[in-house]
Amino acid sequence: MTETTREDTGALTGAQARARFRTGERTTTIGWADRYAQANLISVPRAAAYDLLLFAQRNPQACPLLDVSEPGGHTTVLAEGADLRTDLPSYYVWRNGELADEVRDATPYWREDLVTFLIGCSLTFERALMEAGVPVRHIEEGVTDPMFTTARRCRPAGRISGPLVVSMRPLPPHLVSTAVRITARYPNVHGAPVHVGDPAALGIADVRRPDFGDAVTVGGDVPAFWACGVTTQAAVVASKLDFAISHVPGYMFITDVPDSAYAL
Amino acid sequence: MTETTREDTGALTGAQARARFRTGERTTTIGWADRYAQANLISVPRAAAYDLLLFAQRNPQACPLLDVSEPGGHTTVLAEGADLRTDLPSYYVWRNGELADEVRDATPYWREDLVTFLIGCSLTFERALMEAGVPVRHIEEGVTDPMFTTARRCRPAGRISGPLVVSMRPLPPHLVSTAVRITARYPNVHGAPVHVGDPAALGIADVRRPDFGDAVTVGGDVPAFWACGVTTQAAVVASKLDFAISHVPGYMFITDVPDSAYAL
Repeated sequence: MTETTREDTGALTGAQARARFRTGERTTTIGWADRYAQANLISVPRAAAYDLLLFAQRNPQACPLLDVSEPGGHTTVLAEGADLRTDLPSYYVWRNGELADEVRDATPYWREDLVTFLIGCSLTFERALMEAGVPVRHIEEGVTDPMFTTARRCRPAGRISGPLVVSMRPLPPHLVSTAVRITARYPNVHGAPVHVGDPAALGIADVRRPDFGDAVTVGGDVPAFWACGVTTQAAVVASKLDFAISHVPGYMFITDVPDSAYAL
Repeated sequence: MTETTREDTGALTGAQARARFRTGERTTTIGWADRYAQANLISVPRAAAYDLLLFAQRNPQACPLLDVSEPGGHTTVLAEGADLRTDLPSYYVWRNGELADEVRDATPYWREDLVTFLIGCSLTFERALMEAGVPVRHIEEGVTDPMFTTARRCRPAGRISGPLVVSMRPLPPHLVSTAVRITARYPNVHGAPVHVGDPAALGIADVRRPDFGDAVTVGGDVPAFWACGVTTQAAVVASKLDFAISHVPGYMFITDVPDSAYAL
């Protein structure tokens, strides 16, 4: 999708990656600035922000909060000089729980009452997985991680409710323990898997057909499922929220915080 | 203070301890129901609840949220059948940031708009410390842990701001590493110390004169400081909140959740 190789983009700093997206480059952030934590973004009107904050508190594995802005704010303590309206490669705009638009610059949609939540992303622990010898299939295959809406309900908060969304990584059976052990050290970016094996038990009919992101080869591996920040987008839909702006799954906000800062 | 020995009260379940407090027994909960997590309680009007929720998100080491009630609610997922208005041994009532009353039953002060926050408490990891051979001085001396208001400011949220409050445990120098390692495994009950040694660097003039709780013998040990949930009470004062109800420092809410459930 871009003319650069994965190696080039992986070596960027968060600030360098954000500058590229700010000037309009549209690409998934998989493998970009791979020493820096990535984050989910969801902006909602102040009138819905208490419920979303409580929803995050009640579903911390899916919605680990890394930062919450002031109303109308578009800066964050996670990235100096960042503009949350422009520094992601793509945004969804939601109205009444339905997708209304996809834009590369959210500035025209920004509102004075929007509170922006930045939520941990499991891409943050993938470098640690690979360094421990755990293959990450979607990186090997150059695609976005597959994500699924499950039959498991989140604990609701006020008007906000919805299903748990998970990301899936196929694991060689002898590396399941290693992957659990490593990712458990990263509770703020979803931590250990919520489920290992048997997709049907999560209400997932076919692990080859994700609801978001791309399909990856599973083969003889065990599908392992991590709670995913896209859970907040599923909640926007399920709760028919009047207005929201979010990242596009796989097109994340890249922070200045080193991945390792989220490891215990 | 009570006719029972520490051994008797330590063996109680959370429900048994709560029943004793519900019928009016007033005692610190130090050493009570020692297999079960204890929690700080702070109830504020719904109008201040968003700011307090955000304050907790922005100061997670001081304010790790274990549960947040519905407005007017007095139950919690942490303890079946518990009544948050009566099941603590003592409550403070706050008006305009000043202490207005201390009561054994908060029912007369409960309001339909009160949102109650239950916040992790470092008493939860003390059994793990002792099992690892780390002495816990205030338990040895049969008193409440010493707590101090520091010169370190919390990150504010809306109208809520205030200083960090810490609890102090003197550690033999050769056990500092063990205590850090063990408590780091309990991030939801304040985790590792925020500071080890030199009280003056935290703005604490004399470790023998705590602001809350009781003094303990320090001797040749190193004072270690953990973030403390009483930070929320200091914020009520500093922010001159119009109304709040809290636990009395050291007189905690005892849950049904085993201490070990909060260990990573």
